[in-house]
Amino acid sequence: MTQMETALSRFKEALHKIKALNYSSSMLFWDASTGAPKSGADARSQAIGVLSGYQYQLMVNPQMDEDLNVLMANLTALNEQDRVMVMDTKKEYDKMTKIPMDEFQKFNMLISKSSMVWEKAKEQSDFQLFKPYLTEVIDYLLKFAAYRGYEGHPYNLYIGDFEDGMTVDALNTFFDELRERIVPLLKRIADKNKVIDTTFLNRNFPVDLQEKVSKELLAMMGFDLERGLLEESVHPFTMGADIDDVRLTTHYYEDDLASALFSTAHEGGHAIYEQNFDRKYQGTPLASGTSNGFHESQSRIYENNFCKSRSFLNFWFPVLQETFPEQLGDVSADAFYEAINRVEPSLIRIEADELTYSLHIMMRYEIELGLIDGSIKVEDLPQVWNQKVKDYLGIEPPNDAKGVLQDVHWSEALFGYFPTYALGSAYAAQLAHYMSKEIDLDGCLSRGDFEPLTKWLNEKVHQYGALIKPNALIQQITGESLNSKYYCDYLEAKYSALYGLN
Amino acid sequence: MTQMETALSRFKEALHKIKALNYSSSMLFWDASTGAPKSGADARSQAIGVLSGYQYQLMVNPQMDEDLNVLMANLTALNEQDRVMVMDTKKEYDKMTKIPMDEFQKFNMLISKSSMVWEKAKEQSDFQLFKPYLTEVIDYLLKFAAYRGYEGHPYNLYIGDFEDGMTVDALNTFFDELRERIVPLLKRIADKNKVIDTTFLNRNFPVDLQEKVSKELLAMMGFDLERGLLEESVHPFTMGADIDDVRLTTHYYEDDLASALFSTAHEGGHAIYEQNFDRKYQGTPLASGTSNGFHESQSRIYENNFCKSRSFLNFWFPVLQETFPEQLGDVSADAFYEAINRVEPSLIRIEADELTYSLHIMMRYEIELGLIDGSIKVEDLPQVWNQKVKDYLGIEPPNDAKGVLQDVHWSEALFGYFPTYALGSAYAAQLAHYMSKEIDLDGCLSRGDFEPLTKWLNEKVHQYGALIKPNALIQQITGESLNSKYYCDYLEAKYSALYGLN
Repeated sequence: MTQMETALSRFKEALHKIKALNYSSSMLFWDASTGAPKSGADARSQAIGVLSGYQYQLMVNPQMDEDLNVLMANLTALNEQDRVMVMDTKKEYDKMTKIPMDEFQKFNMLISKSSMVWEKAKEQSDFQLFKPYLTEVIDYLLKFAAYRGYEGHPYNLYIGDFEDGMTVDALNTFFDELRERIVPLLKRIADKNKVIDTTFLNRNFPVDLQEKVSKELLAMMGFDLERGLLEESVHPFTMGADIDDVRLTTHYYEDDLASALFSTAHEGGHAIYEQNFDRKYQGTPLASGTSNGFHESQSRIYENNFCKSRSFLNFWFPVLQETFPEQLGDVSADAFYEAINRVEPSLIRIEADELTYSLHIMMRYEIELGLIDGSIKVEDLPQVWNQKVKDYLGIEPPNDAKGVLQDVHWSEALFGYFPTYALGSAYAAQLAHYMSKEIDLDGCLSRGDFEPLTKWLNEKVHQYGALIKPNALIQQITGESLNSKYYCDYLEAKYSALYGLN
Repeated sequence: MTQMETALSRFKEALHKIKALNYSSSMLFWDASTGAPKSGADARSQAIGVLSGYQYQLMVNPQMDEDLNVLMANLTALNEQDRVMVMDTKKEYDKMTKIPMDEFQKFNMLISKSSMVWEKAKEQSDFQLFKPYLTEVIDYLLKFAAYRGYEGHPYNLYIGDFEDGMTVDALNTFFDELRERIVPLLKRIADKNKVIDTTFLNRNFPVDLQEKVSKELLAMMGFDLERGLLEESVHPFTMGADIDDVRLTTHYYEDDLASALFSTAHEGGHAIYEQNFDRKYQGTPLASGTSNGFHESQSRIYENNFCKSRSFLNFWFPVLQETFPEQLGDVSADAFYEAINRVEPSLIRIEADELTYSLHIMMRYEIELGLIDGSIKVEDLPQVWNQKVKDYLGIEPPNDAKGVLQDVHWSEALFGYFPTYALGSAYAAQLAHYMSKEIDLDGCLSRGDFEPLTKWLNEKVHQYGALIKPNALIQQITGESLNSKYYCDYLEAKYSALYGLN
């Protein structure tokens, strides 16, 4: 074997082991979320500690350094799949090694403490408790940005961790259009004062029937239940342990039908992505979504563009009525459609409707950017937060728990993550727009026929896994980069019709 | 730190990591047994392969060799707990290293193949298929015995792997008494021709009610459901991942009440052992049963001596009747007692009653011994098997599937394992005998009051974990070594009364 072949073989062996350890950690997480006795938390966290220690050693060691150098010097000699894995790993390796180990460890200890303090601060609705930790987190992020190096804005680094190639410039353009078009749209809806009844969604819906409907929905969407699981957890999530073992959870509330159904549709979108990577990537890092934004696009397209559409209800609402005759017998499909899509500015992001959700994300993006470039001070955060909520949503948080302290992300230093939620919705709208040029979307949904839709996504998006990076992928599919126009058009069309705006 | 302190600290760190990897593998096994999609088997087996690779590396390496030598040379300077861990690990280390690596790998490949072939041979009821594999397995066992070294009979090595200190001489004495007393007892029962109705056990018992009763039974026995789980799997088992995370399974059959209930009682006994090791052993190898036989004694004492006793039914049968009024309303406690304890010679070990079970084990012991010492040839096995079944049980297997091919153990080279099933019942009888000198066993059981019983076992057996080896432990508790007299007395008394023998 040549030096390069030896390096490649050793490199792949290390990735294989990292994947196996990841698989194991994922299963411990799944177990913890779906049924493990609480008392076992210590033993589990010790096991996870040992597994992640091995993962770190496999990634950061002189041999890996040497192999990566050899492989990076021979990129053109590698096939596409290997080349992308080498480049992705090199990026990850640099991220892990450019920061001095002792500082990284201190940072991890800070994060662990900071999450706990955030939880307490939220409970007591006291931002002052959390303030010094957030200040320190941001100091670290700036320091680490200097170690890692970046082009343009330091925030480029953090958004890039979740969305390869995305920049502050592109995000500014994206959110500018959103701000210009969605804020006035919301104003027009509010002025309309239309009353939409949602009370029937809170009648009593037996959990076993909700579970039955959820599984039927998943199967209809194209999720292969033979190669996965649907279970219940406090917070719904999806875990793609392997192409042939993809698991998702939802959460059933007896007095809330919409919650479980649309969580299932959402996680189902993520799960269908994970089930449909090209088999040749199985067991490699390429068997994963290409970015957070693209992953979110798959959950959003199934949840919003498909399952919350008026067309799909032509097929689905009669099914729901049949399952829940007492609860939904006196409800019309139109009334159901309006109820599940009602726009209602609210304080809490995770409870927001499809329209106001994007504004929640936009203000978080503005704040993250300001904290990183220094134009917003941590101490002013509650005031800044409340002002933005007032400006964009027209309401005022009564306290910090329902305001600036509501999300866990900043306590875990997850800067750059929030924007990918909005990018997901925008990719979804752009994909749906181009899909509808080839497929009679409304016709298919009206028949409950997801097959052409899922097949289109399989072919255009899923199969590539992480091989093609997000910008190249959206270009390849739609002939243009991410364009917020489609997202704004979609929202305007949907809500103008729903609220009778002219 | 002295050289010994350094060695001890490094040794404990390695054990800690091995435990964490064990925990992870256990959870993957639990997942596989309780709900994982079948399609995920490949990814899981690759993960388990990587985990066990690390376990092997942690155990077998020059540093461990050196540390064990240092520690073995300083045993008297160690506290009891550390001393036992060092000695146990040294024993395991020798077992793993005295066999040349390449032969051990070939052996593992053989086992993997052999299990698959056994499965096929059993399906087709064709011993000839399995014969060459079993021959090779036995050749390896003999060769490995030579590598490892042993005193007296090579079989001492293999029984010792599961039951520390047990020997062929002791087992011969044990089974001789069993043979002399149980075979005639069974004959007397058969001659009695007593008809016992068991048909009501096969009425329809809804699974959710069986689950409810099973959980109540576990709680009554003293299993802490807050620190564990009861779920369902094809084959019931217990997994003590940690003192604070002990899981067991049972299997519910709608048309068989006894199966789930007594599987639960059996696994519950194992599980109570695992929950009650002294906390100072948590996370170490001492947090485990001291031997297979002792572990089995805890399952058997709860299943047979306690839950299948006539006394316990005074309390429990009315509870069962209340849960299943339609199914058990016309049944008396006496009829129920007779039905769950009916003696019926049968071909399949795992379906055997308490009395004939010991004969199933005895004949397997005789055969294993003969195969190892050469007095039985593999090619004669079906004939030898069938003759023993006829001699001991008075029935004849119609084919090898229901005869010599019924158990998986030999295909996996698990020689020395079978006898521990019988040892478990014998330990259980001996423990129950001595317990009843201090506690009004029948009185407690008649009130459904397990507390003094479980407390006695906690104090005498469970707390010690693997610290005190089986022979020392039974001596410490009862003042004598394992004595089959108590087991035979117990069986004679129970079945003489049940069958009205004089």
